[in-house]
Amino acid sequence: MDGRTQLGGIDKERLWADLMTLGAIGGTAAGGSMRGALSSADREGRALFAHWAREAGLALRVDRIGNMFARREGRNPQAAPVVIGSHLDTQLPGGKFDGPLGVLAGLAVCRALDAAGTVTARPIEVVNWTNEEGARFQPGVMGSAVYTGALDLTQALSRTDPTGASVEGELARIGAAGTTPVPGAVPHSYFELHIEQGPELEEAGLDIAMVTRSSAMCSGYATIRGENGHTQTLAMSKRRNALTAAAKLVLAIDAIGASIEPHGMVSASVIENWPNNRVNIPHLSKLSWAIVGFDPAIREATVARIEAACAGIATETGLVIELDHRHYREPCLFDEALIGKGLEAAATRGYAATRMPTLTAHDALSFCALCPTALVFVPCEGGISHSEAEWCSPDQAAKGADILLDLVQEAAESE
Amino acid sequence: MDGRTQLGGIDKERLWADLMTLGAIGGTAAGGSMRGALSSADREGRALFAHWAREAGLALRVDRIGNMFARREGRNPQAAPVVIGSHLDTQLPGGKFDGPLGVLAGLAVCRALDAAGTVTARPIEVVNWTNEEGARFQPGVMGSAVYTGALDLTQALSRTDPTGASVEGELARIGAAGTTPVPGAVPHSYFELHIEQGPELEEAGLDIAMVTRSSAMCSGYATIRGENGHTQTLAMSKRRNALTAAAKLVLAIDAIGASIEPHGMVSASVIENWPNNRVNIPHLSKLSWAIVGFDPAIREATVARIEAACAGIATETGLVIELDHRHYREPCLFDEALIGKGLEAAATRGYAATRMPTLTAHDALSFCALCPTALVFVPCEGGISHSEAEWCSPDQAAKGADILLDLVQEAAESE
Ligand SMILES: [Zn+2]
Ligand SMILES: [Zn+2]
Repeated sequence: MDGRTQLGGIDKERLWADLMTLGAIGGTAAGGSMRGALSSADREGRALFAHWAREAGLALRVDRIGNMFARREGRNPQAAPVVIGSHLDTQLPGGKFDGPLGVLAGLAVCRALDAAGTVTARPIEVVNWTNEEGARFQPGVMGSAVYTGALDLTQALSRTDPTGASVEGELARIGAAGTTPVPGAVPHSYFELHIEQGPELEEAGLDIAMVTRSSAMCSGYATIRGENGHTQTLAMSKRRNALTAAAKLVLAIDAIGASIEPHGMVSASVIENWPNNRVNIPHLSKLSWAIVGFDPAIREATVARIEAACAGIATETGLVIELDHRHYREPCLFDEALIGKGLEAAATRGYAATRMPTLTAHDALSFCALCPTALVFVPCEGGISHSEAEWCSPDQAAKGADILLDLVQEAAESE
Repeated sequence: MDGRTQLGGIDKERLWADLMTLGAIGGTAAGGSMRGALSSADREGRALFAHWAREAGLALRVDRIGNMFARREGRNPQAAPVVIGSHLDTQLPGGKFDGPLGVLAGLAVCRALDAAGTVTARPIEVVNWTNEEGARFQPGVMGSAVYTGALDLTQALSRTDPTGASVEGELARIGAAGTTPVPGAVPHSYFELHIEQGPELEEAGLDIAMVTRSSAMCSGYATIRGENGHTQTLAMSKRRNALTAAAKLVLAIDAIGASIEPHGMVSASVIENWPNNRVNIPHLSKLSWAIVGFDPAIREATVARIEAACAGIATETGLVIELDHRHYREPCLFDEALIGKGLEAAATRGYAATRMPTLTAHDALSFCALCPTALVFVPCEGGISHSEAEWCSPDQAAKGADILLDLVQEAAESE
């Protein structure tokens, strides 16, 4: 590793300037970014990425779901590429780091290799995956899932945002759809740099975490059916009010979450209410909930407790409550060899590093089962993410990119 | 009254046919109607009203907020007109009777006078008031309030629906804006026929109620501010979740409502939640609530209890809760002379009648303080209204229109 370190690693100032410049696209007054997937701001972010990729001599291609691949050719163009990926879309609004750090650090890795005059054996591809956040179009982790074949292209293209705009229509509108077919080939290996989205690295005073495994999730909906009526004439005692039943369920789910801490979290953070006006008794309310944790057994028990809460509230209120569209995501394990190499690279560079699981989903999860995959975390200030206040320092960003450089360079020279 | 009764009163079959025909515009599979104010369906409903008005020889004019006036000339064209009004807009969706009955009964009154060869001293105007329901654009009772000057035209035109479409833009889009200036002249007297929207007439086996007074209302918002965070990483114990606080407030307000029954009702039937996705902790929730009852003192006490509930939940959760945009509507009294005449007319026709207050708002409330005003109720099946299942029988509708005819004919002959 010494040779590479002597080459100076990542250009910290350039990486930071890129993060700040990209963050200004869709920039908000509070310092965050609003680049919902396939929005007009996302189009501008994509254009800037394409510009920087061409500036770095990378060849660009785009697939049918809008994933952008910036390729640095290798000595052996036929070899499966080493892929560095993350996403340029944000929450609504989000911060400057969740997503962009992983993509822009990929460009920084290519520039560092150029600066060192290095041509690797394998090609390296820096990827911007479409719609990782799932904030505008669900499901999230869309582009990488379509790439691996875990999600059907037609299904993804048909998804709509709350105004009815479709992924297909918005890809066309902003000119983000390419012609490269999906699913794509399995990479040689996959690398992603991301902010932690939690406070642990910062609290422990560490620079780097090599992610060991992902969480066991379960999400779903609860649909509560009441009965319509006039809020100004129907006696309180005769009402079948879906919103009051939904309120009971929000509180029950929150209490379940509190009771399983620290083994996991449960949130009912989404509510839809019909007809949501002052003169009609709410007669249809819908909650969306999600459980996240590491132990599938605790998850199963928690799902059962949510089911029991629904049944109890249904009995108490006389309303119908259905739990539907349940979706499970099983935990995956990251590559132990790459975790070891990452910790070793950190030690060589004098960066304090640890092993850590991830609660949140990332594009890297799409590749875990397909090829050697590493997910590298750097600290985020106060553990705040999915927020305009999300922050990471220039040093932390560059240290993470240095580890990415070390891992990618070694992988790109390997058989 | 005998002379008029011998003339046969209202053409029951025609009135019913008109109600069913109009109800088919924006008709829903469940038998209701979806004619939100200034929607395309409202345009078709307005066109049909205009057609029937012209067919009946009435002269049409439209004012700047889209109120439509169909005028039957009197022997003295300079005399202040007797106005019969209600609304053709519906809830989203609503039924076939709330609103249309009062407008179409007005046309039926004109036709009955034609059939009897009667020309009244005063002109009679049948009015379709714009946006009574307030389901699409708030506030409701918009058109009549702009007519009387209680609501400023510019303010009304600037109101937007949830998609951002404005009253002004939609008036233009559907061609519903006229040139007659607002506010308009005070009528000689105002009459409105409406379904009861409650079960009392049906339960008592009565045909007619003369409305005595309206309710004391207070409505407002509660804005709850939490803190953003990632639902998959922020510990349950550290969350400042606006939605769970909103859920507590929904239940507290419902319990307050239950405790004041039968003196009034309290509803928090509207909720907005930000950013309302699965990965962000809700950090802004907004409830809209309303109190309705007859005793202003109970209303004041109830407002104070809602304030106390907000303060308690704010303390318990550590979140900020603001009660704002409070709006009071004071009770008004209907004209005792007209109530007496209505009861007398019902007795003459052999219809069982009573006196009754109204909890809900109607366009008639806009005129109570300005001129002699009468509001006539007919039964609605099961007390169900603001619902596709809302129903009134042909007999009940025609009996109500008969009383309207009697009251209007007498008023139109008076000084
Ligand atoms: Zn991300
Ligand atoms: Zn009405």
